[in-house]
Amino acid sequence: MKITAKKPLIGSWTLLLLLFATVAVAQASDPLPSWNAGNTKQAILAFVEKVTTLGSPDFVPPAERIATFDNDGTLWPSHPMYTQLAFALDRVKALSPEHPEWKTKQPFKAVLDNDLEALAAAGEKGMAELVMVSHTGMSTAEFEAIVTDWLEKARHPRFKRRYTDLAYQPMLELLSFLRANGFKTYIVSGGGVEFMRPWTEKVYGVPPEQVVGSTIKSKYEIRDGKPVLMRLPQIDFIDDKTGKPVGINTFIGRRPFAAFGNSAGDREMLEWTRAGSGARLMMLVFHDDAKREYAYGPANGLPDTKFGAFPQSLMDEAKKKGWVVISMKKDWKVVFSPAKR
Amino acid sequence: MKITAKKPLIGSWTLLLLLFATVAVAQASDPLPSWNAGNTKQAILAFVEKVTTLGSPDFVPPAERIATFDNDGTLWPSHPMYTQLAFALDRVKALSPEHPEWKTKQPFKAVLDNDLEALAAAGEKGMAELVMVSHTGMSTAEFEAIVTDWLEKARHPRFKRRYTDLAYQPMLELLSFLRANGFKTYIVSGGGVEFMRPWTEKVYGVPPEQVVGSTIKSKYEIRDGKPVLMRLPQIDFIDDKTGKPVGINTFIGRRPFAAFGNSAGDREMLEWTRAGSGARLMMLVFHDDAKREYAYGPANGLPDTKFGAFPQSLMDEAKKKGWVVISMKKDWKVVFSPAKR
Repeated sequence: MKITAKKPLIGSWTLLLLLFATVAVAQASDPLPSWNAGNTKQAILAFVEKVTTLGSPDFVPPAERIATFDNDGTLWPSHPMYTQLAFALDRVKALSPEHPEWKTKQPFKAVLDNDLEALAAAGEKGMAELVMVSHTGMSTAEFEAIVTDWLEKARHPRFKRRYTDLAYQPMLELLSFLRANGFKTYIVSGGGVEFMRPWTEKVYGVPPEQVVGSTIKSKYEIRDGKPVLMRLPQIDFIDDKTGKPVGINTFIGRRPFAAFGNSAGDREMLEWTRAGSGARLMMLVFHDDAKREYAYGPANGLPDTKFGAFPQSLMDEAKKKGWVVISMKKDWKVVFSPAKR
Repeated sequence: MKITAKKPLIGSWTLLLLLFATVAVAQASDPLPSWNAGNTKQAILAFVEKVTTLGSPDFVPPAERIATFDNDGTLWPSHPMYTQLAFALDRVKALSPEHPEWKTKQPFKAVLDNDLEALAAAGEKGMAELVMVSHTGMSTAEFEAIVTDWLEKARHPRFKRRYTDLAYQPMLELLSFLRANGFKTYIVSGGGVEFMRPWTEKVYGVPPEQVVGSTIKSKYEIRDGKPVLMRLPQIDFIDDKTGKPVGINTFIGRRPFAAFGNSAGDREMLEWTRAGSGARLMMLVFHDDAKREYAYGPANGLPDTKFGAFPQSLMDEAKKKGWVVISMKKDWKVVFSPAKR
């Protein structure tokens, strides 16, 4: 009797042990397999342990675990140009039959002629014109469909893969690792919010409501009896440089405990993150891997780039303030996922 | 042998049954005890069942379950004036010793004299002036401290309780019920984001990153070697009327499946919610309970109010479109929590 009475209890323990064993295995295996062993990887592991260990002086309640990631150059390539600019150029070409005047009018002529020099000469004003004709004048639903269709068809000029297949594998692991440890992962990018939201959940596991970026103004209208939001040719907010802490404060309302960037545009986001109390992790992806991806920036003895500048002053600030610089070449075992998904 | 081999399995089942029993009990008890039985309560229960039942044609994946709530007049009173306006008036009084010129200058004189008629005469321009002097010119951290301090000390003039103690009990239950069913609950209010964020998590269970509202511009600065965000006297975005779908799209990026309001300012949020596919729930709190709270609006045969207008046209649209009108008097067993927390 005694034995049979205990049997069900043993059964329950068996089940519980099985559950715990699964958890233990998940934690024991390397959560960052695409990162080489070394100080960089160790900095991530040590930070996560500190903020998640109950009783640690740096423990952070799960609700406050916010991590923010820049997108271009941090989660996917920003070369040979920002993906969103490649989209804008393709879009101008697609729309050109309806605009015969573009054949002789800059900056459109430069796009149609693939004349990158003339395009560069058009400067910021020219870029803004290209963004406006390619990104506005339609409803938000129409824009989403255009972006989704383009990303399905477009290929990166060097790697010949879909842009969304070029998310950095080590960063995908980092996103997952942080989420497994209770972090809410956000994108905080200079790119357009509505250019990113259609695919960030599938590619990065970041849902639309956790994407912060630059915005254009939109207007509520009734069209054919149905409400739509029309995208207006007017910049609302630029989520770059000093705009990043502003965007974080406006959209999230909490200061991040970890922030990841790759360029001068991320400097203030990292400063803002660091200014909070307790343990904070600030990291910069440094592009020093011309073979597997790209290499640029004065610290490489190379000219800096327009698409994610990493000036010497940023490297100096990183060293002074203890920000961790990720060497793509040394710290990453692989850059992209090996096979097409 | 056969029997003993099965014992552990039975034990596992015992544990599982215990787990399921707990879940079943939690669901069997009334999740909305402060709501009277009737069509309104039934509309909520039926909607939640439809969107959460696997295999139902209206099933919504958990990640897409977004519910948006207006704040003033929907989750707490908007009478005798918006709480944020009461804050602004108190703030002007607190700052007046540093501004002797306010004694003779409108709209400040009206505030200091408690002259509500002169205040009303100052109109929107006057209100904007009061908001600017009371809400800007300090850092975001300083403003948060000012709001928190005021809410601790201020009392509602009629109910003599802290404003945050006046959250509507039935709406608190509704928020919890939706969250228990996988919804992310958001506030989408005409009020200021940074006036709400310091207390919405404690009072409503809505974390700062799920609060959408009106914003002022802010600026990143280094002050005494530390980065701060300074609040500038410049409106950035008004999250009201047609602004609500814009705000929802900009901040959340998903269309709600359920939306709750109480006034003409919520009309477009409900229209936008309704225009989505599948089952959607649109509800309006109607203030018809002068005894326990307030009664106003033409549908009550009473004059409408400046603080949460509910015009006849809104009632007509609600009836025509199947939006559920919550009668505070008939549908709510209690309005406020009985005891001070």
